Parts: sequence; structure tokens; C-alpha cells
Amino acid sequence: MSGETDLSTRVGAPADEQDLEDLALDEDYALNAAFVDMVIDAADRGDGERVRELVAALHPADVADLMGFLTADYREEIVPHIAPEELAEILSELDTNIREEVLDIVAPATLAKALEDLDSDDAADVVDDLDDRKRASVLAAMPAAPRSAIEASLAYEDDTAGRLMQREVVYAPQFWTVGQALEHMRGDAADLPELFFDVYVVDPAMRPQGATPISRLVRMAPNTLLTEIMEPVTEIPVDMDQEEVAYIFDKYHLISAPVVDPGGRLVGQITVDDVVGVIQEESEEDMLALANVSDAGRDASTAGIVRSRLPWLVLNLFTETVAVSAIAVFQDEVQRVVALAILMPIISSVGGNAGTQTLAVAVRALAARELNASNTTRIILRELMAGLLNGFGLAMIMGGAVWFFYHDIRLALTAGLALEADIFVAAVGGILAPLILERMGRDPAVSSSIIVTFLTDLMGFFAVLAIAALILL
Amino acid sequence: MSGETDLSTRVGAPADEQDLEDLALDEDYALNAAFVDMVIDAADRGDGERVRELVAALHPADVADLMGFLTADYREEIVPHIAPEELAEILSELDTNIREEVLDIVAPATLAKALEDLDSDDAADVVDDLDDRKRASVLAAMPAAPRSAIEASLAYEDDTAGRLMQREVVYAPQFWTVGQALEHMRGDAADLPELFFDVYVVDPAMRPQGATPISRLVRMAPNTLLTEIMEPVTEIPVDMDQEEVAYIFDKYHLISAPVVDPGGRLVGQITVDDVVGVIQEESEEDMLALANVSDAGRDASTAGIVRSRLPWLVLNLFTETVAVSAIAVFQDEVQRVVALAILMPIISSVGGNAGTQTLAVAVRALAARELNASNTTRIILRELMAGLLNGFGLAMIMGGAVWFFYHDIRLALTAGLALEADIFVAAVGGILAPLILERMGRDPAVSSSIIVTFLTDLMGFFAVLAIAALILL
Repeated sequence: MSGETDLSTRVGAPADEQDLEDLALDEDYALNAAFVDMVIDAADRGDGERVRELVAALHPADVADLMGFLTADYREEIVPHIAPEELAEILSELDTNIREEVLDIVAPATLAKALEDLDSDDAADVVDDLDDRKRASVLAAMPAAPRSAIEASLAYEDDTAGRLMQREVVYAPQFWTVGQALEHMRGDAADLPELFFDVYVVDPAMRPQGATPISRLVRMAPNTLLTEIMEPVTEIPVDMDQEEVAYIFDKYHLISAPVVDPGGRLVGQITVDDVVGVIQEESEEDMLALANVSDAGRDASTAGIVRSRLPWLVLNLFTETVAVSAIAVFQDEVQRVVALAILMPIISSVGGNAGTQTLAVAVRALAARELNASNTTRIILRELMAGLLNGFGLAMIMGGAVWFFYHDIRLALTAGLALEADIFVAAVGGILAPLILERMGRDPAVSSSIIVTFLTDLMGFFAVLAIAALILL
Repeated sequence: MSGETDLSTRVGAPADEQDLEDLALDEDYALNAAFVDMVIDAADRGDGERVRELVAALHPADVADLMGFLTADYREEIVPHIAPEELAEILSELDTNIREEVLDIVAPATLAKALEDLDSDDAADVVDDLDDRKRASVLAAMPAAPRSAIEASLAYEDDTAGRLMQREVVYAPQFWTVGQALEHMRGDAADLPELFFDVYVVDPAMRPQGATPISRLVRMAPNTLLTEIMEPVTEIPVDMDQEEVAYIFDKYHLISAPVVDPGGRLVGQITVDDVVGVIQEESEEDMLALANVSDAGRDASTAGIVRSRLPWLVLNLFTETVAVSAIAVFQDEVQRVVALAILMPIISSVGGNAGTQTLAVAVRALAARELNASNTTRIILRELMAGLLNGFGLAMIMGGAVWFFYHDIRLALTAGLALEADIFVAAVGGILAPLILERMGRDPAVSSSIIVTFLTDLMGFFAVLAIAALILL
């Protein structure tokens, strides 16, 4: 079964399951359409046995993915065929709106049982999506220990380190040796996290003093003191925003980090696998925010899509109406030289594009914390200079083209100057709008593109018409 | 020193260094401007001792960050003050263009010594940035083992698993027990990676059969067979694109994965900390590509910025010129009803915005592998329906506004119908352009926004003028 010819496979699984899994996943491990169709076929035929077999062959993450490709009706048919011991992990992988729907189908007792198997952070995520009544009955059906871990996790605000962390953590007092630490791990199996990477060394007040990766621990003589081999650790305050947590993990290449309460006491740990999802999420949010849309997910209804986009379009309709008022002021000029009506949209479009370029680069730099007071002036000046140069290049091309088509040097000059002015405005707006939004404590990706497009459109129309009024008419 | 009042601190470092580090980093661990200014001041005063002290207090990642905030002149002053044992890690953290510059300053012998301390993947990354002559002399100055590891790594193509992986890996034959594996780790210290998370179990032909996390290993009885406790592993083919590697790590929450050659033999491993950077990078690339810009980095020269943006703007200038040719065809209509020249830019702008929204959502879904043949039709239909509905809502608002301002029901009808048509075209283009690009094997984020903007502008102009010609004039 091992990958002689087909390399995209997880080795080590039972042979028959692996055959099906090979069928389900493309070379790049993405779920393929043919497999989704097989599941749909089996469900259409009412062949529950086959559905169970197909679903059982998949990794929980792939079952969650499969759910995303199905419609709500098929999901409802398939959920009962999921093995109870797989349910918990699948739930923690599902997109929020699909999860809410699946949670409606599953009985509270089954759910309570499934959640016991999850780390406290993942379990809390799932419980958070339950409506109040079901949440109460699920929690009531759970043993005290996991229930209080989940309740403690839910007490922290959304998108903070407290919500991201798991309470299960391996720690040791400062006077322990390597041998004692290893002994503790072997003995105390029930209380330990299922997977861990570091042992945190704490003082008597539970304040972290350092950490040792287990891969180092196992290579040391048993009588070595932990304090001799521990390394500095980066503490995460429990109320830190998850975006900052992700930044810290990325920057220092952390695998895990201790989370501390305001008194500096160890209350849990965050591991890198939780952070990978956050990084993905935060980058996607910036991209979507720049496009003035919040993603409603692949399972969104048409109404959900409309709700997530229409408000921004209405705002855009309004700002654009203000921008074109520049044209209304110069109506007579447009009527006399109709070529202006042709040139204006070109200029405002290219200006808008230039503004978006600057904006995207600035938003990325801000997200990566690459802009602060020590280089802001330099970066702004560089953007303005680049705007002038880009504008000059474009103005030469456009002026040349206008002269070629209209044989009118003054019209060519009007177009060129207006384009140069608009590209400069694009640079000013593209770099300043996100910086100012950030300074105001707002998300620089949200609404900045509306502002910049407004500025470049307004300037595009105004510059053409004002310059035309001066030199052309 | 531990974090009673100030929580943003790494505990466990020497006290005086920690004071300086607290000063250098903001609450969210971002390097602050005041510290950058302190370094600049010390360099201006020629106070090498102080520069060394300031730089020594920082984590290598923060030194790299500091470099990004400085100009090239200051970097040249500061590099000689970096401790040789810190140099390697700082180099592997630097942005490519800054790294090339720093590599020019450092002597080949120092560099060869520094690179020995790095994992083979990080060392290869650095060597890749050297010019040919310097590369030869640096490699010649290195011992045979790390040199051949670096050369082997460089033999793989850029952005593949082979380049991302480290060759240092812990593996064990199938007949080993937990005790034997732990014994091996203690004995063989020099050959092992500095940090590792999994032991791979291989067959006699070096093909991975499974893996055991060390956190599980240390909790098992010494006479347990590895094959009893190993779990399935996800193999990464050595020539897999790094974007796919990142997708797999994210999907299955992997901490490490074995990399295999075309014969299925273990040749290295990829760890999640390498992948975090890739995920960040790939998401950023999509965002920038949608904005038609490649990031030239915070250290880019003005010329670098112009080069990365001007070609796209010229292309945009050209497509926009084609789009406005619709206006040129209907010049007489514009001259008779100058209000059309005011309405057209509003409609094409809102249409463009709607197209960008759809596009961003589609590009995100494609990157997350959330679109395949089994749901494409449904997603397309949903987008078109949402386009019709959004268009209807906007058309009512715009039609109403036009009627209010112009008291002309036919002009209002023209504006409303044209806007509805343009929003529909935006939906068609926004969903189909990325899907078709993807189907053609192209990156759906690159150039799709140029296509969609062209379509919405063309349609915006054409619809207004054609409808006006039919019902208004």
C-alpha cells in the first residue's frame, strides 16, 4: 500500500480505508468532485451502509470539507452516519454556519459525550455555537472537569488568547530534574494534554520561568536540573488579541507558548496548530476587507451574500455620486468638448488602480508591523515620489495617444496633466488613508479602498475639467 | 524581573538584557520607534559599544526587524556589531533584498562558520542569495557534511517541499521499541535536529510507515513496540509546491510531516514553523495580486516600486481606453444629454466594486480549495442570483435619485436598467474569470481584476448609452 506510484496518500491506515481515501483526495490532498458525487449517489439511493463506509475512510478534516461541498439536505442525511467518536473532531473543523446546522441535528447527550474528547479550546468553540437552551443541556450532561474547563474558556472574550488557549499544559517546579519531569509525564497521563511540545518551568506562584522542548528533555541526563536547560519563553497575556498572538508565533517561530493571567500566573498554553488557522483567517480578512466584502462562506445563502455586499455598494453609490458632482459643475465644458467625457473615465480608472496598489502594499506592511514612527516619513515620501514618476510615465503615454487620435495638443496636455495629478492623489490617499485609520485605532483594511476610490475619482473628474477650463476653452 | 506589571516580556533572559528588550518591544511585541531611534542615535554618535549592547538585547527576529526599519547606511554601520553566533539566525530572518546587501558586507569565512549552526533549509535559503563567486568560496570554507546538505537542498526547485524541508530527521526501524528509540536520541545527539516533534517509523527501504509524537513516546513503557503506538502520516512528495504543503499542514493541523522522494523514501521533514511563513506569504500574494501589484518590500527603492506597478497601470490604461470606445461610438447622445456623462462613471464604478467583491470571495474560496466540479454550478448560480438582487436594490436607489434630481422618468429608467445590467455583468465576470483562469492552470488572483474591471467599465458605458439611445432619445 505504500506510495510507490501514488504519493498523495497517508501511509499507515488500514488498507481498504486507504484505497477509498486515495480515491477521495487529489494529488494535492484536496477532496475531489468524483468522491463527492459518490457520496451524493449513495445518499440518493438511500444506501446508508455505503455512505458510512465512504465517510469513515476520510480524515475528520476531509469530512468537514465534504460537508461544505454538499447542500443542507444532503448534510442532514449524512450526519447520522458519522461515527460518534469521529463527531467531535469533525465538529471542530466545520465552518461556523454549517456547524450550527449540524449541531441542531445531533442530540445533546451524544454531543456531551463527543466534546469530552476535545481539547478545551476546541470544545469551547463548538459549545459557543450552540443556542442557549441546548448549551445548558449539553453542559449539564458532561462530567464536572471538562465542563468547567469549557465554561472557563467561554468566559474569555472572542478572538483573545484566552479563547485560543488550551488549559491542559505540562509544567514543573524549578527544583525538578529531567528524570522527575519524565516520571511525571509517564504517571500523570490522564491530566496531560494529548499532544505537547514544551514543559514549562514555574515558580511557586505558578509564574513561568522558562521552558524546555521535550525533544531536548529526552536527550539530557536524568539528574540534570530543568533550570539548567530551560530557555526563555515568550508569555502571552490571556486578553491579547489573536491577531497579535499570530504575529508573535510567526515572528519568533514558536511551537507553543504559555498563557498567563494578569498576575503573571500560568493558566494555559497556545500551540502553533491553533495559530495557523488564525494567520490564514486574518490574511483573508484583509484581502476581503480591501475588496469591501465580508465573506459569507461557501455555504452562504443568496440572501447572506446580498447582506454582506449591498451595504458597501450603496455606500459606493453615494460617494461616487458626490465625486461626479465635479462633472455637474462643469456641464457646459463637457457639452462643448465631448472628448472630455471619454477621457475622464480613463483617468479616474487608472488613478483608482494606482491607489489600490499603494493601499494593498500599505495594508500588508501595517499587518506585518513593518511601519512605525521611525520609517513612516521615509515610506510616505517614497510613495509620493513613485506616484510622481508613475504619473509621469502614464501621462506621456496618454498624452501621446490623445494627440495621435485628436491632433489637439491642448487636449493632450489636459489629459496628461490630469492623469499625473490623479496618480499623485492616488499615492497620497493610498498611503495616508490606511496610516490615519490605523492611528485612529481602526482596521486599515476596512473602508480605506472606498476612501481612496472616492479621492481618485473626484480628482480624476475635477482635474480634467478644471485644466480643460483653464487651457482648452 | 518576571511580568508582574508589564506582561509583554520574555521571561528567563538575563535581567539587564531583559530591561532593554522591554524597552524595545511594544505591548504587542512589535519593535517600537523609540528603540529604533536609540540605535540610530548611538550609530550617529559612533558609540559602537552602545550599538552592540542594544542589538545584543534583541531576539534575532527583532534584529532582522530593526534592519528593515533602518536605511542601508545604518545597516552597514550596525552589521559589524552583530555577534557572530547570532549572525546566522538573523540572516535567515531578513527580507531578501536586505539579506543580499548584508551578505555583501560579511566575509566568506565568517559566513561559512555562521551557516553551520542553521538547519539545512534555512542555510540553503541564505546561500541561495549569494552571488556565484561568493557562494563558491563560502561553501568551500564549510565542512563536508553541512556543505553537501546545503547543496542537496539547492538542487530542488524554489518554492517546493524539497527546499522547505530540513534533511535532519529522527527515524527508527519498525522493530524498535520505545526504549530503543529514546536510547538512540540520547546517544546520537550530533546527528539529530536541534528541535523535533515526531519519530518516523520506516521500513528497510526507508519508506515511512507511521510516526509517533515524542510527547506520546515519553509516556509509554520502554518495551512497547513503535509500530504499536505509531499513527498514520501524511507524506509530502519532495517536488510538491509549497502552497500545497501549506494547505495540507493547515487542513490536517500537522506539526511535522515526512518528505519522500519519487521512490517513496524518506529524505527529510517539514515542520510547521517553516509552513507558517509560507501561509502568510501565499495569502499576502493573493491580496497584492488582486490589487495588481507585487510587493517590493519596505526596503524597496523608488525605482523598484515603479517597476512593480507601472506595467499594470499601463495595461489598465490600455483596457480602459478600449472600454471608453463605447462612449466614442455614442458621442452624439452624450452631447445631447450631458447627464449621461455624469451617470456613466457612477454606474461603472459601482459595477467595478461589485465585481471586485465577487472576485475576492472567489479567489479566497479557490485558494482554500472550497470550489470544485461538485459545487461550481451551484456557486455560479448563487452569485448570479445575488448579482440580480443587488443590482435591483441599487437600481431602485439610483433610479429614485435620478428622478429626484432630473424629474425625468426615462432618464431614471435608463440609469436603473444600466446599473442592474452592470451589476449582473460584474457577477458573471467576478465568478467566471477566476474559475476560467484556474481551469487554464493560471493563478486566479493575477490579472483577474483587470479583466473584471474592463468588463464592468465597458458594460457600464455601453448599457447607459445603448439604453439611452433606445428609450431616451
